[in-house]
Amino acid sequence: MPVHNPKTGGDFSGGTGMTVLERAKKARQASFLLASAALDVKNRALEAVAQALAGHKDEILRANAEDCRRSEEEHLPAPLIKRLKFDEQKLNQVIEGIRSLILLEDPVGRSFMARELEPGLELYRVSCPVGVAGIIFESRPDALVQISSLCLKSGNAVLLKGGSEAAGTNRILTEIIRKASCGAGLPEGWIQLLESREDVQEMFRMNEYIDLLIPRGSNKFVKYIMEHSSIPVLGHADGVCHIYIHEDADPARIIPVVLDAKTQYPAACNSVETLLVNKACARAVLPSVAQALLAEGVSLVGCEESRKILQNASIGEAHREDWETEYVDLKLSIKVVENLDEAVWHINTYGSGHTDAILTEDKSIAGSFMARVDGASVFWNCSTRFADGFRYGFGAEVGISTSKIHARGPVGMEGLMSYKYKLLGRGQVVADFVGGQRSFTHKTLEKSCPL
Amino acid sequence: MPVHNPKTGGDFSGGTGMTVLERAKKARQASFLLASAALDVKNRALEAVAQALAGHKDEILRANAEDCRRSEEEHLPAPLIKRLKFDEQKLNQVIEGIRSLILLEDPVGRSFMARELEPGLELYRVSCPVGVAGIIFESRPDALVQISSLCLKSGNAVLLKGGSEAAGTNRILTEIIRKASCGAGLPEGWIQLLESREDVQEMFRMNEYIDLLIPRGSNKFVKYIMEHSSIPVLGHADGVCHIYIHEDADPARIIPVVLDAKTQYPAACNSVETLLVNKACARAVLPSVAQALLAEGVSLVGCEESRKILQNASIGEAHREDWETEYVDLKLSIKVVENLDEAVWHINTYGSGHTDAILTEDKSIAGSFMARVDGASVFWNCSTRFADGFRYGFGAEVGISTSKIHARGPVGMEGLMSYKYKLLGRGQVVADFVGGQRSFTHKTLEKSCPL
Repeated sequence: MPVHNPKTGGDFSGGTGMTVLERAKKARQASFLLASAALDVKNRALEAVAQALAGHKDEILRANAEDCRRSEEEHLPAPLIKRLKFDEQKLNQVIEGIRSLILLEDPVGRSFMARELEPGLELYRVSCPVGVAGIIFESRPDALVQISSLCLKSGNAVLLKGGSEAAGTNRILTEIIRKASCGAGLPEGWIQLLESREDVQEMFRMNEYIDLLIPRGSNKFVKYIMEHSSIPVLGHADGVCHIYIHEDADPARIIPVVLDAKTQYPAACNSVETLLVNKACARAVLPSVAQALLAEGVSLVGCEESRKILQNASIGEAHREDWETEYVDLKLSIKVVENLDEAVWHINTYGSGHTDAILTEDKSIAGSFMARVDGASVFWNCSTRFADGFRYGFGAEVGISTSKIHARGPVGMEGLMSYKYKLLGRGQVVADFVGGQRSFTHKTLEKSCPL
Repeated sequence: MPVHNPKTGGDFSGGTGMTVLERAKKARQASFLLASAALDVKNRALEAVAQALAGHKDEILRANAEDCRRSEEEHLPAPLIKRLKFDEQKLNQVIEGIRSLILLEDPVGRSFMARELEPGLELYRVSCPVGVAGIIFESRPDALVQISSLCLKSGNAVLLKGGSEAAGTNRILTEIIRKASCGAGLPEGWIQLLESREDVQEMFRMNEYIDLLIPRGSNKFVKYIMEHSSIPVLGHADGVCHIYIHEDADPARIIPVVLDAKTQYPAACNSVETLLVNKACARAVLPSVAQALLAEGVSLVGCEESRKILQNASIGEAHREDWETEYVDLKLSIKVVENLDEAVWHINTYGSGHTDAILTEDKSIAGSFMARVDGASVFWNCSTRFADGFRYGFGAEVGISTSKIHARGPVGMEGLMSYKYKLLGRGQVVADFVGGQRSFTHKTLEKSCPL
């Protein structure tokens, strides 16, 4: 039932009166229709959304100003209010993002395998949407628009849960997207906004209706979700990234790469947290590296060996927790290791499988490191900060995943995709093949699935 | 420590003295080495395993005879004892299977994406093993050999848990595989056998050490595992498969396809459980279909409408549970539906996402059905029984998965694979790209990762 909300003027059709379960069921029903929506319908809907967002600029900015005012009154932390702010520039950015999505090919219905089982019996492996994505994000309203439009293009229904501080902005944005997209032919119910904290707890149990959870927020928040839901989670809790300096590393490269990885943007999940240094070069390398880091305001903790080499008070003692900690700050732990084996062991024991780099001039050492380190991104002679969907050239980034199942590393739209097998026949039965009257040809076909 | 087992004469190096946690840790450590094992080392190990199995034929058959004798004494069900039996023919089959694995290319290290980020900074997406697979299977000792050799070829460590009825056979097989493969250069600890029921409970909690669980057994067993572990599971609990007969279905195809899907091997997960018939053709189609099924000994239950049409006592009343039940038997439920929409709704509501087929002469109806049915395998004009790794031409089958995350449908060796991003540079830092001194080229490269 349409409900009029006096605060934002939004019209919440199918709407605030529904329980989370009802909304999830509705989203799942819509997902079956959305999965077969034609590309031009989806693109028309995206264009309608872009136009509606531009057309309702004043109302959106007004709702956001009200959210910001309330959050300031409630003395919420300044970085949160900064992320919450949705101004004309951000609005233009998300509209531009939608228009670039329109230009992309349809991610649904791509054939990845085509095989003749016998003449007239053809098997295709075809991309399809995952189904229903549950997106849980903190603060940033631009994330809501970005992820919803990615879901639309990829044929997925979406349950959105934003932070309460952004409630007014999230409501008006969701309503604009819903109205414009459904007006352009998308099935009602494909986009749903959940508002209360209890809603999110309920989401965790909805394996039957939600196929994938995508959290966007702090590590603590993501870890909590991973531990409390049996629905697969696309994301990463920690980013405990390493750089290992092998004994033959080019000295000219060490300081620039380590500084970039630690100081270029310390709050990023792909910044380095632990520096591993081969024993054979530790004495030659560590003093100048430490000096450069200290000059940039980085505080250091280290193992006994590294403290012995540095012999000064500017490096504290590293404890076991340090090896497992993502500082997300201008702090770095240092450890001297015997050899490549110990470096790999340390990374695989204490790391988070996010991004780890080796500095070496030896190709086979680099190859061994990259094969044995169990992580999403393994780098040779470059900064860990490159681990990012934009830098990888993926366009829109759904998230960075440290899972080894489904999507791993920086994940573009393919993280929202699954696949199915389509078998096209003319009445064939298995009994004929078992009986030996017919046999499988298993011939590769050079074509796409005709339906 | 090597432990000598008087029952089978096996030598359980690293061994029965260890706790499950210790074994899992050891497997994980071994997995890092195995991930970088060269193809020729893995192939030599496979050949050594094949020869050792042939060479120890008598001991293997003796241990299995003892397991069978004990199981008969304990009056275990006949089908279980049949699956347990491991004779010379089965031994030869698994040896043949190993030799065919040797012929396959290395699944590890394949490049699926190659992209220049700038000249001298190259990104590759490369296949790698998942890491540690936890295999839980009932009875069949041939499954132990098959899955272990698949793990070996794909560079995965493996924790095996077999049924207690096959304990002696499993022990000697594991020990032969371990000794032969480690003798050929594989890292100690890559294969571990768990024996007690408590072990399996502990496995479920080992997210840190086990990357993927693959259950091979009854639906109840698989469902239990899916519900009790937060480790991703590759498998399927139910196979509630459907055939939907659209109003324009070719009458000559209906009976052969339905009979094959129901009666060719009713115990299979891909046999049909529910027949959906469009209202417009139900009167014309149902009587002859029902007659053919009854003649084959299939018992029928149906909705009110179908019972009205059939007007005889040979069709019972279908209840809600029927729509959700995998009979795995000569039984079929029948429902008359209004249209394609209701058929899709029924399948997506009560089905298990395994395999569903439509019979129609209309290509666009078939296309809509296949896009909207949310399942791993969607078929047009052929029997559901084709959903199978061998018939799809995948070679060895790891399992059939109804998950939409990771591997879906019949799953070959790729179900044991993940991928990682390898970035090869020469000292590049992100700061230069942010500052605008350099920009990304994002050019596709036509080559494989050189390491």
